[in-house]
Amino acid sequence: MPRKIGNFSEALLLSDVTVLLGQDLFPGAKRIQKMKISLWLVAAIIGLGANFAAASETVVVDRSMSEQEVLDAQQGWCKALLDIGNVHATKGHAAAKALAGEVIDGAYAYPMGVVLFKPTLTVNPQTFRATRDGALSYFVGGDSAFPNDDGFALKGWKKCEIENAAIFIAGDSATTMGKVHFTDKDGNKTSVDKTWVFVKDDLGTPRIATHHSSLEYQT
Amino acid sequence: MPRKIGNFSEALLLSDVTVLLGQDLFPGAKRIQKMKISLWLVAAIIGLGANFAAASETVVVDRSMSEQEVLDAQQGWCKALLDIGNVHATKGHAAAKALAGEVIDGAYAYPMGVVLFKPTLTVNPQTFRATRDGALSYFVGGDSAFPNDDGFALKGWKKCEIENAAIFIAGDSATTMGKVHFTDKDGNKTSVDKTWVFVKDDLGTPRIATHHSSLEYQT
Amino acid sequence: MPRKIGNFSEALLLSDVTVLLGQDLFPGAKRIQKMKISLWLVAAIIGLGANFAAASETVVVDRSMSEQEVLDAQQGWCKALLDIGNVHATKGHAAAKALAGEVIDGAYAYPMGVVLFKPTLTVNPQTFRATRDGALSYFVGGDSAFPNDDGFALKGWKKCEIENAAIFIAGDSATTMGKVHFTDKDGNKTSVDKTWVFVKDDLGTPRIATHHSSLEYQT
Amino acid sequence: MPRKIGNFSEALLLSDVTVLLGQDLFPGAKRIQKMKISLWLVAAIIGLGANFAAASETVVVDRSMSEQEVLDAQQGWCKALLDIGNVHATKGHAAAKALAGEVIDGAYAYPMGVVLFKPTLTVNPQTFRATRDGALSYFVGGDSAFPNDDGFALKGWKKCEIENAAIFIAGDSATTMGKVHFTDKDGNKTSVDKTWVFVKDDLGTPRIATHHSSLEYQT
Repeated sequence: MPRKIGNFSEALLLSDVTVLLGQDLFPGAKRIQKMKISLWLVAAIIGLGANFAAASETVVVDRSMSEQEVLDAQQGWCKALLDIGNVHATKGHAAAKALAGEVIDGAYAYPMGVVLFKPTLTVNPQTFRATRDGALSYFVGGDSAFPNDDGFALKGWKKCEIENAAIFIAGDSATTMGKVHFTDKDGNKTSVDKTWVFVKDDLGTPRIATHHSSLEYQT
Repeated sequence: MPRKIGNFSEALLLSDVTVLLGQDLFPGAKRIQKMKISLWLVAAIIGLGANFAAASETVVVDRSMSEQEVLDAQQGWCKALLDIGNVHATKGHAAAKALAGEVIDGAYAYPMGVVLFKPTLTVNPQTFRATRDGALSYFVGGDSAFPNDDGFALKGWKKCEIENAAIFIAGDSATTMGKVHFTDKDGNKTSVDKTWVFVKDDLGTPRIATHHSSLEYQT
Repeated sequence: MPRKIGNFSEALLLSDVTVLLGQDLFPGAKRIQKMKISLWLVAAIIGLGANFAAASETVVVDRSMSEQEVLDAQQGWCKALLDIGNVHATKGHAAAKALAGEVIDGAYAYPMGVVLFKPTLTVNPQTFRATRDGALSYFVGGDSAFPNDDGFALKGWKKCEIENAAIFIAGDSATTMGKVHFTDKDGNKTSVDKTWVFVKDDLGTPRIATHHSSLEYQT
Repeated sequence: MPRKIGNFSEALLLSDVTVLLGQDLFPGAKRIQKMKISLWLVAAIIGLGANFAAASETVVVDRSMSEQEVLDAQQGWCKALLDIGNVHATKGHAAAKALAGEVIDGAYAYPMGVVLFKPTLTVNPQTFRATRDGALSYFVGGDSAFPNDDGFALKGWKKCEIENAAIFIAGDSATTMGKVHFTDKDGNKTSVDKTWVFVKDDLGTPRIATHHSSLEYQT
C-alpha cells in the first residue's frame, strides 16, 4: 500500500509485520495469532527538489475472525479434551481438573458474563451449564453439586475429529455446525451434532460463547 | 436531550417518535418495531435579542437487538409452527407448504447465504439443513429429495412453550438457549433443547441464522 | 478442508467457488464480490469395504469486511466523484444529479436509517447531512433548501487520491482515517482529513455509515 | 419472564439484579454499569400433584451499547478534559500528564491495536495520532517527538458542551456526530465538529476507537 504523493514519489515497503500478542490458551498448543496488525512503512519523497520527506504508514488492525482461526480453535478444543483424559490417566484427577480449569478459562467466554452451554450428556434439571463450575464438572466430574456428571473428558477418548457442515463468519464472531466424532480406546465411535459460536475477546482470541452438543437422533 | 446553546437558550422537546418500518413477517403476527428511531426536535433560541434561532435535532438509530425483540421472535416461531399445522388440517398440504415457505422467508436468514439448521428429528446424511429447501421439507415433508421427512409442523401440535435458560445479546445479534415444550392434541408433551442465533437484517428484523434442536438426553 | 472420517477415508476437494452476488453500485465500476461463499465438496469413502459413502460439504459464508473491500470502496467513492463532474461537464446538471443520486443510493447507508455525514465545506445550521437530500445537495447543489451548497462534485476535480493513515476492521464494519487529495483541472491540490465507517448490508456491500471530512488545520 | 410449565404453574419473580462490574475509568466519575445481567429466578410448580418442582432461571447478558452509555461516555470525556486542565493549574504539568495518561488508558481503545484519532489542531506530518504517545502529547504537550503540540487540555477550558446531530448504535458499538463547544476562562467559545466511534471492551466499557475533530469550516 505505498502511496504516490505528487509526481516524484518514491515508496518503500519496509515491512509487513504480524505482531504476536499470543499467550498459551490451549495447553500444549501455542496459539499466537490474536490480532493481525499489518504495518506498512512508506517513505515518500515528494517534489522535484525532494524538499519534503514524509514518513507515512498505514496501520491496519483486523479484528474479524478468519476461517483458519475458527478451524484452529476447533482443533484446540479436540486436543484439549484428549489432553485432559491423558493427564487423568497419568497424573490423576486433581491434575486433570486443574488442566480442565485452564482450558475453560482459556477457551470459553465465561468472563463475558455467561456461556450458553448444552453438553451432550446432561439431564434435567442441570441440562444447561451457564457457569464455569457447571462446565468444569461436566468435563471432569467429582462435584457433588452436579451428581450426575462422571466426566466426559475422562472416558478415554483417543481421537476427536471435526466434520463441519457449515461455517458462518459474522465478522468478529463465527458459528460452526457439524459432526464431532469421538473414538475411545477400543475403537468405538460416538458421533455428536455440535454447534459452536466463537467470539473474539479484546486480545483477539476466539472464545466459545455458545456450545450445543447432542447425540444423533435415533429413528 | 435538549441542549443549551449559549446563555439564553430555550429548549423544547417536541416529540419522541418511533418510526414504524414494519412488514408482516410472521403470518398473523404483525411485527412492527424494526428500527427505533428517536427524534428529538429542539428549538433553541440563542442570545438576548433572539437574533438567531437554530432548530437542531438528534437522530438516534439503534440497531441493537433488544431482549423483547428476541422474545417476540421466539413466540413468532412457536405461533408459526402451530399455524402451519392448523392450515394443514383445514386447508391441506399445499396451503401448509405455502405458509411454511412464507415463514421461512420471513424468519430465517437464508438470504444471507446459509442457515446453520440442525432440526430435532433429522438423520444422516441429511442431518443439517443449510438450504431453504431442506428447511421447508423438514417442516412440511412431501419432498422426495428428503425421503425421511414427514413434516414436523404437521404433527398436530397444540402448544409450543419456550423456557429460556440463557440469552446472550451480542449487539445486533442474540443467542438463546433453553427448552421448547411441544404439546400435541392428546396432551402428550415433547421437550427439546434448542439454541437459536438471531441476527438483524437491514430492516432491523431478527432472523434465525442458527437453529440447533435436539431431543433431551436419555440416561 | 477435506476431512478424514475413519481410517480409510478418501477426500476429494471438488471446488472452491466464489459466488458472485454482484450488482452495479458505483456506476462504471462493477463491484461484484459481495459475499464470499466457499464451497468445499468432499466425497468421503469410509471403511474398508466402502460400506458407507457420505457426500458432505462445508458451506462457508464470510460476512467480515476484508481490507481489499475497504480499499475498493474508497476507490469507488473517488471514481464516482470524478464521474459526476465529468457527466456534469458533458451532459449537464440534471444528468449529474441523477448520477449522484445513484451513487448515494449505492454507496451510502441512508436506507439503514441515517448517515453521519459531515462534508468538508458545509456550514451552520446545515453542517451535518443526515438525510439523502442533504447529501445530494452537497455533491451537486441546486437545492433551494440548502442555499449554501454549490456542488462539491462539480468543481472540476481531475484526480482523487487516498492516503490512509489507519484502517480498523471491526468485523463486518471497518473505519478508515487519512488524507484524501483532490486535484483540479489547473493542477491545484486540496487535501482533506477524512474518516469513513463502512458497514456491510445484507448483500455484503460495504456502505458508508459515517463520513467526516475536514480541511487541514492551518496554524 | 416467569414461564408456565404445564397447567398448574406458579411463577415467582425473585429479583432483577444489575451486576456491577465497574471500575474507575474517568477520574472522578465512577462509571459502573458495564454489563447488565438480569437474573430471573423462577420457581415453577408443575402438575396437579406438584410432582415436579423445577427451579429455572434465565440469565440475560446484554452487550449492546445503550444510548445512555454513549451519552455518559461523552460527558466523561468532557469532564476529563476539564479535570486535566484543573490539575495542571493546581498541581503542575507532571500531575496533569499523569492524569491524561489515566484518561487515555481508561477511555480510548489503544489496547485494541490502534485508535483512529484526528485531533482538532494537529498538522502534517503528525496529523493523526494512532498511538497512545501521540494522544498524550496532544492533550498535555511537552513531548519533543511532537514539537507542535502545546497541550489542548491545558488551554484553560471551563466548559465543554456536547450537541449531538446524530447517534448510530450499531450493536456493541456506536457512532456519534455533532458539535462540541469549548468555553475558556474569558468566556470565549470554540466550536468543533466531532465524530466518535465507541466500542465496548470485554468488560462492557465503551472506549473511543475513532475520534475525528475539526474546526468549523469558514466560508
